[in-house]
Amino acid sequence: MTLSRRSLIVAAGTTALGAVANAQAAVPYPQKAVGSVRTLNGWTLPYKMKNGVKEFHLVAEEVDHEFAPGSRAKCWGYNGGTPGPTIEAVEGDRVRILVTNRLPEATSIHWHGILLPSGMDGVSGLNQPAIDPGQTFAYEFTLRQHGTHMYHPHADEMVQMAVGMMGLFIIHPAGGEPERIDRDFAFLMHNWALRPGTFRPDPSVMLDFDLWTFNSKVFPAIEPLVVRAGERVRVRVGNLSMWNHPIHLHGHQFEVTGSDGGRWPRRRWRREVTEIVGVGQTRDIEFVAVPGDWALHCHMSHHTMNAMGHEIPNVLGASIAESDADLQSLVPGMMNMGSDGMSAHQEHVEIMKLQGPDNTLPMMTGEGPHGALEMGGMFTVVKVRPGLDAGDFRDPGWYAAPANTVARMISEDPEFGAPPRRLKS
Amino acid sequence: MTLSRRSLIVAAGTTALGAVANAQAAVPYPQKAVGSVRTLNGWTLPYKMKNGVKEFHLVAEEVDHEFAPGSRAKCWGYNGGTPGPTIEAVEGDRVRILVTNRLPEATSIHWHGILLPSGMDGVSGLNQPAIDPGQTFAYEFTLRQHGTHMYHPHADEMVQMAVGMMGLFIIHPAGGEPERIDRDFAFLMHNWALRPGTFRPDPSVMLDFDLWTFNSKVFPAIEPLVVRAGERVRVRVGNLSMWNHPIHLHGHQFEVTGSDGGRWPRRRWRREVTEIVGVGQTRDIEFVAVPGDWALHCHMSHHTMNAMGHEIPNVLGASIAESDADLQSLVPGMMNMGSDGMSAHQEHVEIMKLQGPDNTLPMMTGEGPHGALEMGGMFTVVKVRPGLDAGDFRDPGWYAAPANTVARMISEDPEFGAPPRRLKS
Amino acid sequence: MTLSRRSLIVAAGTTALGAVANAQAAVPYPQKAVGSVRTLNGWTLPYKMKNGVKEFHLVAEEVDHEFAPGSRAKCWGYNGGTPGPTIEAVEGDRVRILVTNRLPEATSIHWHGILLPSGMDGVSGLNQPAIDPGQTFAYEFTLRQHGTHMYHPHADEMVQMAVGMMGLFIIHPAGGEPERIDRDFAFLMHNWALRPGTFRPDPSVMLDFDLWTFNSKVFPAIEPLVVRAGERVRVRVGNLSMWNHPIHLHGHQFEVTGSDGGRWPRRRWRREVTEIVGVGQTRDIEFVAVPGDWALHCHMSHHTMNAMGHEIPNVLGASIAESDADLQSLVPGMMNMGSDGMSAHQEHVEIMKLQGPDNTLPMMTGEGPHGALEMGGMFTVVKVRPGLDAGDFRDPGWYAAPANTVARMISEDPEFGAPPRRLKS
Repeated sequence: MTLSRRSLIVAAGTTALGAVANAQAAVPYPQKAVGSVRTLNGWTLPYKMKNGVKEFHLVAEEVDHEFAPGSRAKCWGYNGGTPGPTIEAVEGDRVRILVTNRLPEATSIHWHGILLPSGMDGVSGLNQPAIDPGQTFAYEFTLRQHGTHMYHPHADEMVQMAVGMMGLFIIHPAGGEPERIDRDFAFLMHNWALRPGTFRPDPSVMLDFDLWTFNSKVFPAIEPLVVRAGERVRVRVGNLSMWNHPIHLHGHQFEVTGSDGGRWPRRRWRREVTEIVGVGQTRDIEFVAVPGDWALHCHMSHHTMNAMGHEIPNVLGASIAESDADLQSLVPGMMNMGSDGMSAHQEHVEIMKLQGPDNTLPMMTGEGPHGALEMGGMFTVVKVRPGLDAGDFRDPGWYAAPANTVARMISEDPEFGAPPRRLKS
Repeated sequence: MTLSRRSLIVAAGTTALGAVANAQAAVPYPQKAVGSVRTLNGWTLPYKMKNGVKEFHLVAEEVDHEFAPGSRAKCWGYNGGTPGPTIEAVEGDRVRILVTNRLPEATSIHWHGILLPSGMDGVSGLNQPAIDPGQTFAYEFTLRQHGTHMYHPHADEMVQMAVGMMGLFIIHPAGGEPERIDRDFAFLMHNWALRPGTFRPDPSVMLDFDLWTFNSKVFPAIEPLVVRAGERVRVRVGNLSMWNHPIHLHGHQFEVTGSDGGRWPRRRWRREVTEIVGVGQTRDIEFVAVPGDWALHCHMSHHTMNAMGHEIPNVLGASIAESDADLQSLVPGMMNMGSDGMSAHQEHVEIMKLQGPDNTLPMMTGEGPHGALEMGGMFTVVKVRPGLDAGDFRDPGWYAAPANTVARMISEDPEFGAPPRRLKS
Repeated sequence: MTLSRRSLIVAAGTTALGAVANAQAAVPYPQKAVGSVRTLNGWTLPYKMKNGVKEFHLVAEEVDHEFAPGSRAKCWGYNGGTPGPTIEAVEGDRVRILVTNRLPEATSIHWHGILLPSGMDGVSGLNQPAIDPGQTFAYEFTLRQHGTHMYHPHADEMVQMAVGMMGLFIIHPAGGEPERIDRDFAFLMHNWALRPGTFRPDPSVMLDFDLWTFNSKVFPAIEPLVVRAGERVRVRVGNLSMWNHPIHLHGHQFEVTGSDGGRWPRRRWRREVTEIVGVGQTRDIEFVAVPGDWALHCHMSHHTMNAMGHEIPNVLGASIAESDADLQSLVPGMMNMGSDGMSAHQEHVEIMKLQGPDNTLPMMTGEGPHGALEMGGMFTVVKVRPGLDAGDFRDPGWYAAPANTVARMISEDPEFGAPPRRLKS
């Protein structure tokens, strides 16, 4: 498995004494331990222990990133990927983070939400000189808080974040959690102007993005969140995009329990099914898992699509038979799509792959147990199953719903009458 | 009244045992009862009681919708309209909802925020097969919660929601409300890319919308919220648009008392005058009504406008007399507008109706007791009057403000001196 | 200092008995007193006391406004500026506000969030006739609340707000603050479509703005927030733009303590480092100041930029040497920028000033103690120093960080090894 191999190689290179990346095998799931966070499609950065200081090493560099099979781009990230590896530490830790710059321009890192000396805050020009290409800088501070935080550049910030430089910085409480957390997931939201047929995200775009990602992946390449029924689950969601995304979970009421301002006291928890995670914010949500396959996604419907034009002619409701015939006389198999809606897009994915622009995902994709999901972008599935081993994150396949708990076709069933008549409008 | 006629016909067709749609006449206003919610410009779906199950029937279909007189479009909705009728039920109810698909493509319904078996959750492909054109499906589940929820497709979701498929699903508490609610209003926010001169909303648009609606209507076609002074009012606001809208009420501090995550305990209520209702969220707001005519609107100023170009030349402050003369030699009555601001738009509405594109509302409109309101889109008025009968929702006309409580012209009044001198800049 | 001169002249013209504008000198900082709020780059409107009524006078007029040196525009504002002066009063006050209209079209003022008679609410057409050019109207009401509120037109609202008409209306509690506030800052957020080379913001733009401002200024023209270490600071942030902005403070966890719905009880305060301030909302944030130079900004990275094109060709990663040579043969000194990121923009600010469009700020700018800040727009610095006199708001220069508290270059330091090897991707 690629992530594990990468993690082990990194670990070997740094003689990690701490935790390793997310394991795929069933292992006991430690409370409070570094390594207990499951970064979707990601990994936790190992550290060296040096005279009581946990030393991490981030390398800012260009990376060849895959959003999903069929869509790659040159991005900028850390330690080989975007987002960078998750840093996990414990309240009270003294941490030192070395940052090596292998980019073609200067950078810096801001430790978003972390209380530290002004000179360690990472705004280049204001708090420190920028880290020039080839240089390594050391940041060092003591962690006096816990919660879900982030790291990202604060030098040419618009460009560097637009092309993928970001990571999670999670601090575990010294005194343990008020409620036992059985599974602890984390991801960062982002958006990318990767124009169809191109291989480099455009950092100058402010509004009209093509790809909307969880940890720089789009559905169906985003890992499912695998959970045992009845477990208490935390999902830590951070946002370094250009949009305040409303995150919606199906089948559960969750509690919002904290933010980049730290974990909130229990009286401040708020029950929701949809929570806006603003740009530059994190939100921790917690819930007790109910068996099933439950969608977890941004509720902006265009953000659960992949690349598409937003200024194409509107053929909804148009009569296109003649136009289709003309098209097919020129290009066999070519067709208009959208006169009856756009679900035909997914049915014709294979044709689109041949005819569409290079390096461009279909607008919607994903196959489930009952057919096409017609989704993309910021969408994944929380897969809750009874009887999983603790710490088993392997994809269990699709949910086998108990008898009589699935919406069913009753068109022919004489028990149900005709639809109600209505006023013709 | 169209809505009542439609409701009665639907009711006749389904032998409704439950509540009928919003009555226009003054009737006692029941607590907790199905039918107690006043859906702005809408109605509550009747049901049949069958062996202890409340059976509703939704028909997904194309509808001919009017946003306001002068702007119609072919949309998709339920049971003849967009939004679909409001489903009201009570915590503990067993409900069955039949869904007939009369659209040209497959659909499904997701019951947003409702706790139910995974197979009833409505994500086509994931939780169930899609409902093909011509088919009827049955969803069935027991309501284990209360609050303000929604229904919408989860199949070709971007298209189907963009053209109007959505509705409210309101569950009343089994044990009654913690505070008596005298009037209980509800609406859904949406946006539409109905290009000037066209008759079909464009589902591919992500950002640049023309119409911003409450229950698929724009001001001044949105019903006022008619209330007796001193009553406790709840307004349930849901959002299935592509924008996180800040909803602002004049003249009152309201409490935010719940969301699609359910009703919040009282200690969680928050006093506001402007509340962001995110996409995929609902918010319940409550207040005690103060006499007057009070604006209720989205605070994005472009969202209280109707169709307008956002890339027109900027003539503010320009000298246009010569250009106007040239224009009028070509087209009598034609004129530039906007060199002194845009309020001239409303003054020239009649000319614009003749000269503007077909099927396109003026940018701003609405006449009040004191002249032009210069509004459109997501704007309506809460009309609070003393002495209304309980349940009387008839428009009481404009507020007659008591003497000396209206801003007044004092230009000639010698009591007030000249404006303050200022530094010439 | 311009602001003081302007304030004094205004004060002289109105025989102010109340507070004067923000003083620059070190003076004792009064609790609860009108004049205690420090409006960034702004001032507090003096009043006359007349028979127990505090009488203010606002003049709506065109103003010649500077966003930062190098960028001016004809805007609309009040009393010579945008935003207008801050109105400060005390709960229980009877206030009368005279509004003189010197604009070329009608206007009105809505007192956002303030509880008042319907006829004083300011929606022209609905609550009152519009104030025609040349007229003066009087609004009068008693303040029955306290908190951070706003004023703005409700007549041709889209245009009038787009070009700068807005102000803060702050009401101090009659009974004192629950916690002593040592410094109390305030600003309003806004956005402007001031196209490069033009001098008039375009009010028809809905999404694609050029300038993002705090009190109509962009970095580095926004005043720093100067604070003594250990003081309790309140920042009142209002938003009358077209975007829900996430405001981020470095180095502190702040509490969100109130909104335009009033000050919240202490149990409702929420610890954050990033707070969305929605359009039409205000948020009060409070924190105890930690020594240092701390960035305070919107976290949308494009909103900390000045004017830039969002549809320029993407040359990131492109080989541009040949193209540069061609360019320079035509225009000496001309160069492509952006193939290695965009920080070169700031390095070449002087060239851009010569070659760029008139009246257009560089995309990023600002020099700090450690070099270029590469920022613009909604960005300023909270400068916290030990030992300042109470009420001393003079810029103390850059922070002198204690030894060993600044991120440092360690490239040559043998104590630290090579960066970790990684999986080549």
